[in-house]
Amino acid sequence: MNRNDVTEKIITAKVANGLTWESIAAKVGQSKEWTTALCLGQMTATSEQAAVLGEIFELTGEEQKWLQIVPYKGSLPTAIPTDPLIYRWYEVVNVYGTTIKELIHEEFGDGIMSAIDFKMDISRESDPKGDRVNVVLSGKFLPYKTF
Amino acid sequence: MNRNDVTEKIITAKVANGLTWESIAAKVGQSKEWTTALCLGQMTATSEQAAVLGEIFELTGEEQKWLQIVPYKGSLPTAIPTDPLIYRWYEVVNVYGTTIKELIHEEFGDGIMSAIDFKMDISRESDPKGDRVNVVLSGKFLPYKTF
Amino acid sequence: MNRNDVTEKIITAKVANGLTWESIAAKVGQSKEWTTALCLGQMTATSEQAAVLGEIFELTGEEQKWLQIVPYKGSLPTAIPTDPLIYRWYEVVNVYGTTIKELIHEEFGDGIMSAIDFKMDISRESDPKGDRVNVVLSGKFLPYKTF
Amino acid sequence: MNRNDVTEKIITAKVANGLTWESIAAKVGQSKEWTTALCLGQMTATSEQAAVLGEIFELTGEEQKWLQIVPYKGSLPTAIPTDPLIYRWYEVVNVYGTTIKELIHEEFGDGIMSAIDFKMDISRESDPKGDRVNVVLSGKFLPYKTF
Amino acid sequence: MNRNDVTEKIITAKVANGLTWESIAAKVGQSKEWTTALCLGQMTATSEQAAVLGEIFELTGEEQKWLQIVPYKGSLPTAIPTDPLIYRWYEVVNVYGTTIKELIHEEFGDGIMSAIDFKMDISRESDPKGDRVNVVLSGKFLPYKTF
Amino acid sequence: MNRNDVTEKIITAKVANGLTWESIAAKVGQSKEWTTALCLGQMTATSEQAAVLGEIFELTGEEQKWLQIVPYKGSLPTAIPTDPLIYRWYEVVNVYGTTIKELIHEEFGDGIMSAIDFKMDISRESDPKGDRVNVVLSGKFLPYKTF
Amino acid sequence: MNRNDVTEKIITAKVANGLTWESIAAKVGQSKEWTTALCLGQMTATSEQAAVLGEIFELTGEEQKWLQIVPYKGSLPTAIPTDPLIYRWYEVVNVYGTTIKELIHEEFGDGIMSAIDFKMDISRESDPKGDRVNVVLSGKFLPYKTF
Amino acid sequence: MNRNDVTEKIITAKVANGLTWESIAAKVGQSKEWTTALCLGQMTATSEQAAVLGEIFELTGEEQKWLQIVPYKGSLPTAIPTDPLIYRWYEVVNVYGTTIKELIHEEFGDGIMSAIDFKMDISRESDPKGDRVNVVLSGKFLPYKTF
Amino acid sequence: MNRNDVTEKIITAKVANGLTWESIAAKVGQSKEWTTALCLGQMTATSEQAAVLGEIFELTGEEQKWLQIVPYKGSLPTAIPTDPLIYRWYEVVNVYGTTIKELIHEEFGDGIMSAIDFKMDISRESDPKGDRVNVVLSGKFLPYKTF
Amino acid sequence: MNRNDVTEKIITAKVANGLTWESIAAKVGQSKEWTTALCLGQMTATSEQAAVLGEIFELTGEEQKWLQIVPYKGSLPTAIPTDPLIYRWYEVVNVYGTTIKELIHEEFGDGIMSAIDFKMDISRESDPKGDRVNVVLSGKFLPYKTF
Repeated sequence: MNRNDVTEKIITAKVANGLTWESIAAKVGQSKEWTTALCLGQMTATSEQAAVLGEIFELTGEEQKWLQIVPYKGSLPTAIPTDPLIYRWYEVVNVYGTTIKELIHEEFGDGIMSAIDFKMDISRESDPKGDRVNVVLSGKFLPYKTF
Repeated sequence: MNRNDVTEKIITAKVANGLTWESIAAKVGQSKEWTTALCLGQMTATSEQAAVLGEIFELTGEEQKWLQIVPYKGSLPTAIPTDPLIYRWYEVVNVYGTTIKELIHEEFGDGIMSAIDFKMDISRESDPKGDRVNVVLSGKFLPYKTF
Repeated sequence: MNRNDVTEKIITAKVANGLTWESIAAKVGQSKEWTTALCLGQMTATSEQAAVLGEIFELTGEEQKWLQIVPYKGSLPTAIPTDPLIYRWYEVVNVYGTTIKELIHEEFGDGIMSAIDFKMDISRESDPKGDRVNVVLSGKFLPYKTF
Repeated sequence: MNRNDVTEKIITAKVANGLTWESIAAKVGQSKEWTTALCLGQMTATSEQAAVLGEIFELTGEEQKWLQIVPYKGSLPTAIPTDPLIYRWYEVVNVYGTTIKELIHEEFGDGIMSAIDFKMDISRESDPKGDRVNVVLSGKFLPYKTF
Repeated sequence: MNRNDVTEKIITAKVANGLTWESIAAKVGQSKEWTTALCLGQMTATSEQAAVLGEIFELTGEEQKWLQIVPYKGSLPTAIPTDPLIYRWYEVVNVYGTTIKELIHEEFGDGIMSAIDFKMDISRESDPKGDRVNVVLSGKFLPYKTF
Repeated sequence: MNRNDVTEKIITAKVANGLTWESIAAKVGQSKEWTTALCLGQMTATSEQAAVLGEIFELTGEEQKWLQIVPYKGSLPTAIPTDPLIYRWYEVVNVYGTTIKELIHEEFGDGIMSAIDFKMDISRESDPKGDRVNVVLSGKFLPYKTF
Repeated sequence: MNRNDVTEKIITAKVANGLTWESIAAKVGQSKEWTTALCLGQMTATSEQAAVLGEIFELTGEEQKWLQIVPYKGSLPTAIPTDPLIYRWYEVVNVYGTTIKELIHEEFGDGIMSAIDFKMDISRESDPKGDRVNVVLSGKFLPYKTF
Repeated sequence: MNRNDVTEKIITAKVANGLTWESIAAKVGQSKEWTTALCLGQMTATSEQAAVLGEIFELTGEEQKWLQIVPYKGSLPTAIPTDPLIYRWYEVVNVYGTTIKELIHEEFGDGIMSAIDFKMDISRESDPKGDRVNVVLSGKFLPYKTF
Repeated sequence: MNRNDVTEKIITAKVANGLTWESIAAKVGQSKEWTTALCLGQMTATSEQAAVLGEIFELTGEEQKWLQIVPYKGSLPTAIPTDPLIYRWYEVVNVYGTTIKELIHEEFGDGIMSAIDFKMDISRESDPKGDRVNVVLSGKFLPYKTF
Repeated sequence: MNRNDVTEKIITAKVANGLTWESIAAKVGQSKEWTTALCLGQMTATSEQAAVLGEIFELTGEEQKWLQIVPYKGSLPTAIPTDPLIYRWYEVVNVYGTTIKELIHEEFGDGIMSAIDFKMDISRESDPKGDRVNVVLSGKFLPYKTF
């Protein structure tokens, strides 16, 4: 057994029972973004969170333990994603990557925007010309230091 | 001569004169995000915008014409970026990609978040535990239709 | 169980029963192009469409539910297709790619032809020197905007 | 000197003089699609066509000879295009590739649609919901035979 | 079930029964080259040919139907073959590729040698300094045309 | 200076003077296939052959010496060729590779067909349905031996 | 069943019974180098050799037949080996590759050192500063010839 | 200036003056194998060795200093070599890699054969059936230790 | 059965029983770093060490024998790791690689730091600004020698 | 002009003048590790540090400005390094990567060891069996948090 087996069991149960990530997140008591990443095998649960998910998806005790083990992260099967929705994000990095780099360095100096001390919020914005997906990313700035 | 030559001339002049992207954008009259992408060879200028940049960077008439030609886009030298700041964005796509896909489909159904009818805002958020980079991405939702 | 299992069940049943995609599409009430993409795991069905396919291919309720889930898209096993027929399409993109780009930009300015708000029609053209495949692609133009 | 030098000279002259591919094609006396592919180094000119282009772009006699040499085809810098417009075409091949294969085989049997005995027409279709790019591709069917 | 299952069943039976491709081809009534490609999952059988193979390899009716379905072609596990015999062929393409191109263009003008309207013959040539493998390839020339 | 410089000088002179590979080969006194490979930087000349080429292409003494140095072979810019003509050859290897392997082993046992002790002849075959390219490849069989 | 199944059975039995390759080779009556390559699925056995291995590893008749079928060669899971011992050999090719090429050409002229008409001997050399691995490779020189 | 410039100057001078690696090595006072690797930019010279090479190839003082700087090693333009002679060595690693690994481990236990504390000797062996290239590789065994 | 099966069994048992690597290493009598590498399939056990692990994880005699066989090393599924923690180490090699090379060569001359005669120690350093991971790597220097 | 031009000028001057990184670092007033990374184009200087380097390497005012611009980081020409010294570090990540991951997670929980808030110290340890390279890496632990 490994973490991937637990991820597949969770997705299978979610489809079979017609659940939404939003309702699952409400039971776990975290954001829908973090909870979805947890269920898709990218994050690590506390024993309480594992127990909640265990009840929702009928997970065994051993499967709940796997949710508490730090996973080998990375959710995409290829280095350049083929799915049109995820590719658009990769395209943003490719087209705007150097722009993002220039502007963060202009504001903060040499360093990075953390992808660990990081959070993300995805929401719908109504618009008569067609609704929009709004995403807010927030990451701590980590400066390079001399040593 | 090609667009890349113009990009390199702009960057060289920017370093030599100690300019900031924010001040350049103010003269162009557009956001700093879009103006930086334009100067880095990813966007297309109007003749008025090209004239403004021509004055700032002492561009010839032919160089200003190149700014008005649609460029071959893509700003990164390798498919998986080596620069730590840009890699963190790639990592976000890799770790959270399937999460983003699940949540947008749950809210909107089948389709994509456009990377064309798209805007981006990068700002600093003060935080006593270390300032944060905040990024707002907004893209129109484009649904798949039957035919 | 995953979408691929349903796709494989559909293909196996299609071979065993000698069905054609055109007859399946007629029952589903959509074009043969879209219906084939649906059956091959690239599109998402309504519950009515899933029920029609369920009857044709003797799918269980759970399998019909899978047809209604947005799939991870991408139908080729390698980045560069090995199958000769599909490769010719890849070659068209490779040889004519910059031509297509120049001409669309000349006509429309900066932007893209959508692959989401998009349709396609494939037909045979009789020709005494050898019959021809005719394909019509139609995609909405999406302009880049300054922001 | 090689074909690429001629291609670069043509593109530089086109930008400097503000020409359109359509007007160039009218002088060459071929479609705008084929003429653009010729100028971008993908096709081979007759001596008459080379002379016309020689006048438009002030090419030397040796440069005109290069236009009459069959080029090494392939117009993209990376196997998977980074430019968003060209990527959407790559995405069509990726998402619809197996669909195209199934339908052509259903209609014609085993074989391919030629990318050599092939033509292409790109035009604008006005649409109140946003104009569309229309493309018609036509390729001869070539059957596999037993031997 | 898929075509690959049928291919594996055929190979396993061939080894267990000590058959040769030449004897199989004689029963099928086609060349040994084409028949081997058919059995290895690269070509498509008529119902009569499928019935002959069905008798030789004890294939079920459904397995015979799979032989009549156009396969996804491509027989190698990696883009660059590791097997020494097959690599030598890849090397010929790599070392002599531009030579082949120059000579075909010099004789025929711009176009290709078809890999579809194509045949191949492999035979042994006795030679006192060591026997030789002789291969004859024959493919139709397909010219590029202006449009 | 390196071999590639000599190759480029030869090709440039050939285009400028409108020579054919066949006439060059006649002067060198070898087949057109081998002579073209030599001129494209894949083979090694004797001093006599280098002198003949030196006269045809006005090569200096040092350039003639480079023709006598064994080159680093490999004539394609990418592992998978983008040029359509060359790709068809690559496709033959991909589709028929295992077939070729099976048949040579059945006839000869374990070993390879040499790509070194090898020759090739390319010719035109007139055909009322469209002329054909005929290619004959001949390579010595090299058996694996126990040791 | 395929050759790989036989290879895995042999390795599993060798570990379970604590055998050495040297003792196995002594029974087969060939060198330890060739015998190990045979057992690892890279070489082809005679029926006598297959019978010897059949007794040692309790192989069925069909498994012994597979040992007599020419295998698809190539024993590494990735193009660039990850295993440190095997990587050192790859590094020798990478660092010393052009050196080897220069020296063989200086001695022999244009051609290759065969990897087919080839043998290898691996032995231990005692050394007070740390024992050494000594390897002798011997391959026939195959010259390129004009044609 | 960098090491590569010095390598190219050495090779150009060697071709122009018709020198052999063996005669150069004799003047340097090291083996032909190591001396060739040094001249091709893979090894590091002492100031005395640099002075000898400086005289042979008319190197400036600064160029001689570059020969004394440890280079970034790796002499091949692609991970998988296209040159047939070098490829055979790659093939030996690919086909025999696991065999070499098994036999060294059987003799020495866990560890590697060093590619640093390593030497190589290449020589010709006359043989009436065709001369042979003999290569002796000798590398220190480095055991993994527990820690 | 292979080494990977044993690795998976060990990891599954460790999760099910909530063990720590540190406690396992204490029983084996080696460092936690080496012991973890052993359990993850990268190192080779003595029969005593295998017996200790056999007791902890309820391994059969055959499974214990696999722990004593030198494994095919390499623990990552892709050449560039997707897991953020491991990627940071890859990033250190990418960003600081040439720095490390310069400084070791400045101190030691031409050669390498061994990854075989090597040890590693990982520990926590308390820090009011956030605890730190401290890692000490120690590898024998191996000089290149002339030959 | 770009940062790479400045890096090459620094390296050329360092070789020509026989300087050591240690002496350069002493003048800059930072560690030899950070200073080398700065000179090799991976870090960003203050104006004071740039002035010191400007004096050592005779850099112009514009070149000193480039040292103060945040560079596009990544110092290696290929994803998998070919240089033996740097490869050994890549090998450590490949062989010990999962071990490092397990032990850091066991001690700290889910998160990463920062490659930004990071320092490194490289030193020589005398050892009668051969001197050792000792490296101390210290990076802040950054925990993943729920959100």
